[in-house]
Amino acid sequence: MTGTLRIEVAGDALFGLDNLPYGVFAPEGGGEFRVGVRFGDSVVDLAVLLDDSTFARPTLNAFLAQGPARWREVRDRVRERLGGDIPTAAAHAVDAVRLRLPVAIGDYVDFYASIDHATNLGRLLRPDGEPLLPNWRHLPVGYHGRAGTVVVSGTEIVRPRGQRRTPSGTPEFGPSQRLDIEAELGFVVGVGSELGRPIPVDDFAAHVFGVALVNDWSARDIQGWEYQPLGPFLGKSFATSMSAWVTPLAALEQARVPLPGQEPEPLPYLRERESWGLDLDLAVHWNGELVASPPYRRMYWSPAQMLAHMTVNGASTQPGDLYASGTISGPEREQRGSFMELSWGGSEPIDVGGTKRTFLEDGDEVAISATAPGPGGGRIGLGEVRGRILPAR
Amino acid sequence: MTGTLRIEVAGDALFGLDNLPYGVFAPEGGGEFRVGVRFGDSVVDLAVLLDDSTFARPTLNAFLAQGPARWREVRDRVRERLGGDIPTAAAHAVDAVRLRLPVAIGDYVDFYASIDHATNLGRLLRPDGEPLLPNWRHLPVGYHGRAGTVVVSGTEIVRPRGQRRTPSGTPEFGPSQRLDIEAELGFVVGVGSELGRPIPVDDFAAHVFGVALVNDWSARDIQGWEYQPLGPFLGKSFATSMSAWVTPLAALEQARVPLPGQEPEPLPYLRERESWGLDLDLAVHWNGELVASPPYRRMYWSPAQMLAHMTVNGASTQPGDLYASGTISGPEREQRGSFMELSWGGSEPIDVGGTKRTFLEDGDEVAISATAPGPGGGRIGLGEVRGRILPAR
Repeated sequence: MTGTLRIEVAGDALFGLDNLPYGVFAPEGGGEFRVGVRFGDSVVDLAVLLDDSTFARPTLNAFLAQGPARWREVRDRVRERLGGDIPTAAAHAVDAVRLRLPVAIGDYVDFYASIDHATNLGRLLRPDGEPLLPNWRHLPVGYHGRAGTVVVSGTEIVRPRGQRRTPSGTPEFGPSQRLDIEAELGFVVGVGSELGRPIPVDDFAAHVFGVALVNDWSARDIQGWEYQPLGPFLGKSFATSMSAWVTPLAALEQARVPLPGQEPEPLPYLRERESWGLDLDLAVHWNGELVASPPYRRMYWSPAQMLAHMTVNGASTQPGDLYASGTISGPEREQRGSFMELSWGGSEPIDVGGTKRTFLEDGDEVAISATAPGPGGGRIGLGEVRGRILPAR
Repeated sequence: MTGTLRIEVAGDALFGLDNLPYGVFAPEGGGEFRVGVRFGDSVVDLAVLLDDSTFARPTLNAFLAQGPARWREVRDRVRERLGGDIPTAAAHAVDAVRLRLPVAIGDYVDFYASIDHATNLGRLLRPDGEPLLPNWRHLPVGYHGRAGTVVVSGTEIVRPRGQRRTPSGTPEFGPSQRLDIEAELGFVVGVGSELGRPIPVDDFAAHVFGVALVNDWSARDIQGWEYQPLGPFLGKSFATSMSAWVTPLAALEQARVPLPGQEPEPLPYLRERESWGLDLDLAVHWNGELVASPPYRRMYWSPAQMLAHMTVNGASTQPGDLYASGTISGPEREQRGSFMELSWGGSEPIDVGGTKRTFLEDGDEVAISATAPGPGGGRIGLGEVRGRILPAR
C-alpha cells in the first residue's frame, strides 16, 4: 500500500479537476466512513491524500465549519496533488465504495423560489384566483422540513400511508395514490451564524459552501388534506433524497448568471450588490426515460436572498444546515420539475417508456441529474439523486 | 471532597423524591456540562452519584437512547440513593449552577392540539367561517419548527424583524409589533424509530421519555403575512424556549386523565387501547403577574396520538426529537395560553401590573410554570420556561 498512481481524467470530463465535489464514503470491504472528492471515476480519500484528520470523519461538518479560506486552500492543494502521482491507498473506484449522507443536517428548509412552479401550482389548486398569492413576489416563501429524514441518493423510498380527502368530506386512510417528486437544488451551509444576528444578503459567500441535488418526494393527496393552516407535514416528511456529492461554489464560478428580474424591487434586506443565479441544466429521468429538463437559471429568488430571508428574523444557522430551492420549473411543459405539473394534476398523463403515467407507481425509479458550465466551454457534473419506490408496508 | 451529606426535602415539596426531573448543568466555578436531577433546591450530579459515564455528557441523548428499562432502573437507584447520605461532591445548589438545553434536538415538531386554541384562532382569523377547518377533528395538525433555535429557559429573546402586511398591500419591514407567546407542553423522544416504520399509537411508552415546558414565541404580524401557503416560518423560527428540566413520564403517573372526548371517532391508527391526557395546571406570568392558567387536561389530541400521527407516513425519529402540543388554552378567558387570544387579537387589552397590554414590549418577561398531581394528594413541579424580550437590533 505504499505505491503511487496517477488518475487520468479527460479534460472534458464531468468530474475533472475543475469540479471535485465532496462526499463521504466507506472503502470496499469495510472501513470507516470518511471524506473524499470525486475525480473522474475515482474517489480520492482526503485524509490519506492530505494527511489531515479533518477528513477522517463520517460527515463534512468539521471541514465546513472551517470557513472559506480553508475551503480554498484545500481545493488548491487537492488540485495540485491530483495533477501528479498520489498514494495508491488514497484512490478508490467510485462504483466500489459505499456513499452516505455527506452532512449531518441540523435544520432543513425548503423554499418555493420558482415563479413558474408557483404559478403552475396556483393554477392547479386555485383555478379561479390569481395564481400567485400576494406575498410571493415580496419574499421567498419557505418552511421547515424534517431534517432527520433527509437520505442519501440511492436510498429506497417506502410509499407513505396517510389520510386523504374523499368526496364525502370524511377522510380515508391508505397508501398515497399521488406520490410525486420535486426536482430541487440544495444549498449546504458551511459557517453558521449566531442567534439574533441576521446574515446580510451580501455575506452569502462567507457562509454557504456548496450545492447538492435534492428530490423532495411529495404525497400530494396527504399534503392536500393536511396542509391548512400550518403547511406541509406528513406529505413531505417521509423522505427527502439528496445527492451524495456536494459541489463547492468554487466549481460554479462559470455557472453564475444574472437573475431573470424581480418586479417589484424587493425590500432593502433582499437587495444584493450584484445578484446572481446559476445556469444549471437539470434532467429528470423516470424509469430511465428523460421526462423533464428544468432550467435553474429561471429561478426568481437568488441563493443569497433565500439565506438572508431565512435569517432576517435572527434565526441562527449551523454548519450542515440545508436549504433547498423548491421545485425547479421553467415556462415550457418539458421544463416542469414535478409530476403534478407534468401531468397537470393527474389530468394529462405523460408517456413513460410506452406507458401512460401521472404519479409514481411501486417499483418506479427517478434519477435527477444536473450539469453546469465549466471553464473553457466544457461542463461539470453535479451528480445525481436517485430513488426507487417500494410498496407501502 | 470525600465527605457525605444528606439532602432533606419536605414530603410536599414540588421537587421531592416523586419528581426528580433531569437536566444538564455545569457546576459553579466552571467544569464540564453534565447530567443531573433536581431534588429540592439541589442538583445532584448523576455521574458522581451513580459512578456512570453516561451522565458525564452535555446532553441527555445517550441516556434517552438506552430505553425504558434503563430509565426505570436509574430512577429506582437515584430514589434509593437520595434517601440516604450521598457524596458531597454530587450535590450543588440549583441557584449556583449554569443550566443548558438538556437535549440535542434533531427535529422539532409543533402541533395544534387544543380545540379551544384552534377555535379561538379560527374566530379571530376567519370571523365569517367555521372556526375549525375540515381536517382539524380528523388529525392532529402539525408542522416542523426550527430545531436549531430551541433555547433553554432564561435565554434572552431578541425581538425579530421581518415583513408585515400594510393596508396598501405592499409590505413594510421592521421589528415585530405583535410579539406573542404560546404556552405549550413538549414531549422528548427517547428511543427513536426507523425510516419506513410508523410507531403504533400504543407504543408511546417505549419511545417517549418525558415532558418539558415550551414557549413557542410567535411574531403574529410576520406570521400573518408569510404563512400562505406553506405555513409558519420566520414568525416562529427566531426562538423557541424550553424548560431546563425534563420531567420523566414515570413522575406523571398520577397526572394521567381520560381525554375530554373525540367526535368523530378518529381513524384506527389513532385509536388507543386506553387513551389518556395529563392533568397539568400551567401558569403564565407576565412581568410577575399571573395572566393565564391554561389547563392541559382539556387538550383534544393525546400525546400518543401526536406521536403515532407524526410517524404514520414512515418518518423516522431520533433520541432527543421534540414535539410540542401547540398552545394550551381552555374554554375560559383566563385559560388562554397566548396573548393573541387573551387580548382577542389586540382589540381587548389586558391589565398587566396596572398597565394595559396586548402584545410584548421590550423588557417584558414571561414565565410559564406548571404543576401536576403527585402521589398522596401532593403536587410535583414541572419547573418553568422564562424569557425576557430585548429590543430589535
